[in-house]
Amino acid sequence: MVKVILIGSGNVAQHLIKAFAKSEKIDVIQAFSRQKQALTHLVDADKITNNFKDLTEADLYIIAVSDDAIAEVSSQLPFENRLVVHTSGSVSLDALDKKNRNGIFYPLQTFSKKADVDFSQIPLCLECENETDFELLKNLAEIISDKVYEINSEQRKALHVSAVFVNNFVNHLYQMGNKICTENNVPFEILKPLIQETANKIMTLSPNEAQTGPAIRNDKQTIASHLDFLLDENQKNIYQILTQSIQNNGKKL
Amino acid sequence: MVKVILIGSGNVAQHLIKAFAKSEKIDVIQAFSRQKQALTHLVDADKITNNFKDLTEADLYIIAVSDDAIAEVSSQLPFENRLVVHTSGSVSLDALDKKNRNGIFYPLQTFSKKADVDFSQIPLCLECENETDFELLKNLAEIISDKVYEINSEQRKALHVSAVFVNNFVNHLYQMGNKICTENNVPFEILKPLIQETANKIMTLSPNEAQTGPAIRNDKQTIASHLDFLLDENQKNIYQILTQSIQNNGKKL
Repeated sequence: MVKVILIGSGNVAQHLIKAFAKSEKIDVIQAFSRQKQALTHLVDADKITNNFKDLTEADLYIIAVSDDAIAEVSSQLPFENRLVVHTSGSVSLDALDKKNRNGIFYPLQTFSKKADVDFSQIPLCLECENETDFELLKNLAEIISDKVYEINSEQRKALHVSAVFVNNFVNHLYQMGNKICTENNVPFEILKPLIQETANKIMTLSPNEAQTGPAIRNDKQTIASHLDFLLDENQKNIYQILTQSIQNNGKKL
Repeated sequence: MVKVILIGSGNVAQHLIKAFAKSEKIDVIQAFSRQKQALTHLVDADKITNNFKDLTEADLYIIAVSDDAIAEVSSQLPFENRLVVHTSGSVSLDALDKKNRNGIFYPLQTFSKKADVDFSQIPLCLECENETDFELLKNLAEIISDKVYEINSEQRKALHVSAVFVNNFVNHLYQMGNKICTENNVPFEILKPLIQETANKIMTLSPNEAQTGPAIRNDKQTIASHLDFLLDENQKNIYQILTQSIQNNGKKL
């Protein structure tokens, strides 16, 4: 039985607590939250503390707080030489206070409070300073997920930047599509099956194989007609830059 | 029983033939293909012609050929005053020869030869010159799809441009994410669940509600660290432009 303490009460902390609760091999013996009531629906009230001094002994402490609070929280922990990890994709291992043995437990997914997630399908990216700690982290990760990876800090940075492209920027393109529809009195609903299929295709095809459309075909007439149709300068600009980028990328293949 | 003739043998033509074959209310009485063998796996050989003069009488002729061939094909049809539609998102109704009654039957989806599609979930965007023809088209469309819309040419243009954003451009962002991963020795596989979830979120949240990440949070430190990480000028440029666009869009909300 691995004894775990969760520090934090946000989306990641809550989803981890739920995922751990499903296994008999993991015991969330305590949780830290500034507002106790943020976690009372998931953890017995007497196991929640808002005082670092009350933290008890555990095999693993998981700091799941906002990026800019990680360093501060780790320095406030009133113990030494225990295994302390954070869950962020963009904060380095060095941010954690050296008085403890450090590591990373980064679930690469977008979490929302409402939707339940199937943790078995969420990639967990792990990094540790030493081999013994890594084994503990890996065993724990494999209990809740089928997709466990050893990822060093440089690789994690690449993943985090890539995630911005395939999640944040992709969603912004949904915003732009939505805006164009709204401005032209067309229900955005019509595009949803296409959005789904665009993501589905990538599960079996490489992005290069899946690329279609006027840019990669170099269909100058359609491109010109689209640019003519777009009145918003920002939409026009992004259309041109991405079209150019698709064409340059195609040439390199 | 609606008698239909398909003209063309590409992805859209083939998927339509398959969808129509499932209904007893629709009879594909003939198909036109320059190479007969392109359709013999779907249509009896004696029903396939490569000569426009052999086209028999039907309730509806569907021209599913490449965009730049639509006008030419419609002008070669050796009959008048019949209902002729094309399936393109970007070609205007006017491209069809005026000697026939014209319309649009535009399935808004990305089709690949390999994958079977569930036509009931594919939006069909219809337009017709007259009401009687529209009713026939609508009845036919509703037999194979649950998502039938009346969309005029201006709206169809908006949809087609939006589709470029949410499909072609989104896939290009997958390409960019893939490239960043490959360059940094990280399996792109790790991002696939995130790609799926990004699309799934849009089924229940608006794109504005679903927007997350350093740009919308105005997390300057993470943005600077990402720009520092990206060495490719094109990647850097697109990162900056989309970040700026997300932030400007956020301000307008």
